[in-house]
Amino acid sequence: MTTTMAMLDTDLSPTQLDKQVLARCIDTCFECAQACTTCADADLGEKMVADLVKCARLNLDCADVCGTTARVLSRQTGYDRDLTRSVVQACAQACQVSGDECARHAQMHEHCRVCEEVCRRCQQRCEEVLAAIV
Amino acid sequence: MTTTMAMLDTDLSPTQLDKQVLARCIDTCFECAQACTTCADADLGEKMVADLVKCARLNLDCADVCGTTARVLSRQTGYDRDLTRSVVQACAQACQVSGDECARHAQMHEHCRVCEEVCRRCQQRCEEVLAAIV
Amino acid sequence: MTTTMAMLDTDLSPTQLDKQVLARCIDTCFECAQACTTCADADLGEKMVADLVKCARLNLDCADVCGTTARVLSRQTGYDRDLTRSVVQACAQACQVSGDECARHAQMHEHCRVCEEVCRRCQQRCEEVLAAIV
Amino acid sequence: MTTTMAMLDTDLSPTQLDKQVLARCIDTCFECAQACTTCADADLGEKMVADLVKCARLNLDCADVCGTTARVLSRQTGYDRDLTRSVVQACAQACQVSGDECARHAQMHEHCRVCEEVCRRCQQRCEEVLAAIV
Repeated sequence: MTTTMAMLDTDLSPTQLDKQVLARCIDTCFECAQACTTCADADLGEKMVADLVKCARLNLDCADVCGTTARVLSRQTGYDRDLTRSVVQACAQACQVSGDECARHAQMHEHCRVCEEVCRRCQQRCEEVLAAIV
Repeated sequence: MTTTMAMLDTDLSPTQLDKQVLARCIDTCFECAQACTTCADADLGEKMVADLVKCARLNLDCADVCGTTARVLSRQTGYDRDLTRSVVQACAQACQVSGDECARHAQMHEHCRVCEEVCRRCQQRCEEVLAAIV
Repeated sequence: MTTTMAMLDTDLSPTQLDKQVLARCIDTCFECAQACTTCADADLGEKMVADLVKCARLNLDCADVCGTTARVLSRQTGYDRDLTRSVVQACAQACQVSGDECARHAQMHEHCRVCEEVCRRCQQRCEEVLAAIV
Repeated sequence: MTTTMAMLDTDLSPTQLDKQVLARCIDTCFECAQACTTCADADLGEKMVADLVKCARLNLDCADVCGTTARVLSRQTGYDRDLTRSVVQACAQACQVSGDECARHAQMHEHCRVCEEVCRRCQQRCEEVLAAIV
């Protein structure tokens, strides 16, 4: 069991969302925040940095949105459905545009290839949470 | 002229959004992140903290979302319309639920009264940005 | 191999720090940011929330500092030794005070028990990074 | 009176630090987080982006550290002196290295010139807080 799942289990506030689905999404959001932060940094270190400017920018946005989403989902007390949905939708969108841009450079740059994979996985985890919100 | 407006003016990337509207929203997002962080903290310091638990939680979410929104809007290079719209919509939503909850305690607690005002203003600034996105 | 290690390996900027040590610290910082965010939330959900106010506050600080530290360590381009040291020292300090406070409630509250463990581990990972900075 | 000062005044937790000094530092930390975020973005938009890679990286770090510092200082409940000192020291350090790097490009790039000024001011505000911690 991951620490996230252990922590969610100790939080005794009533939850509207399945904790397994939540924990997977939280963990992947942090993983994606990490990958996007390093991908933006690796973009800066490339000789062809000018080609990677849009990639770096979208990675930075995605890192910020993923970090915030992980934190919002880590709170179960005082759950608000509409707020959760809006935040997770923004995260799915951020992962999609960041993943799409990384995909354009994936053959040339390994950091974009790995980062694209993480963005796709994170988008999927967000969609699982959205499907669970009723 | 605020520093934010000065900074946006020095960023020569082509912008799709009016810089005055952007700068006002960015400044108010940071102001709201501050107010919500202190309101959540003040909630913890109240004797009746148990009545303010939902308020503290929504304030914490709102602070996170406002901080991320301010950062996304501070980047003009590689602008993505759909991502910007999703993030600002989530921020307007966060400000609304946080403001609504603070409103319920505004007569009793001065920190909730001031924080509600800032949340309302921030929601409006977000809606101005959303109206400017075409 | 974790995603973090994979991402650090793809970043070709010259590094002054061992990537294994960095990756472990980054992953634990995100884990600690998660644990502290949920522990603060669980504090709010307890009947005896008034006893847990200091715990919630220090958890919130620790979550913020850990998140920032993970991001700073995820960037290898343009490495600055003194900045890295200051940030990681602040993180070790945040983990220590947050862990110490959780320890006082660990017998009573499972979320504090798990969170304390994560804080201790994160403090140790930070000290490993500090030892590697020369 | 700024909103920050108003909010700090409503937080009735006993404070060890002068609220005027705190409020000034908090506001300048958010201002610096904004300036550094836009300066890093403007760096990406420059033709000579390769010359500005270290600047962008240090700006990104400084934005993260300033954002976290503003939040830690916005909390008065459960104040911890050593944690506050460590965090504000890291922030002063981040502002110094970010400001120094911007200074090297200030004649060429207006965004670096403005950002340097904000970094210097934020470093000074941090030092005022450090002087007030006893």
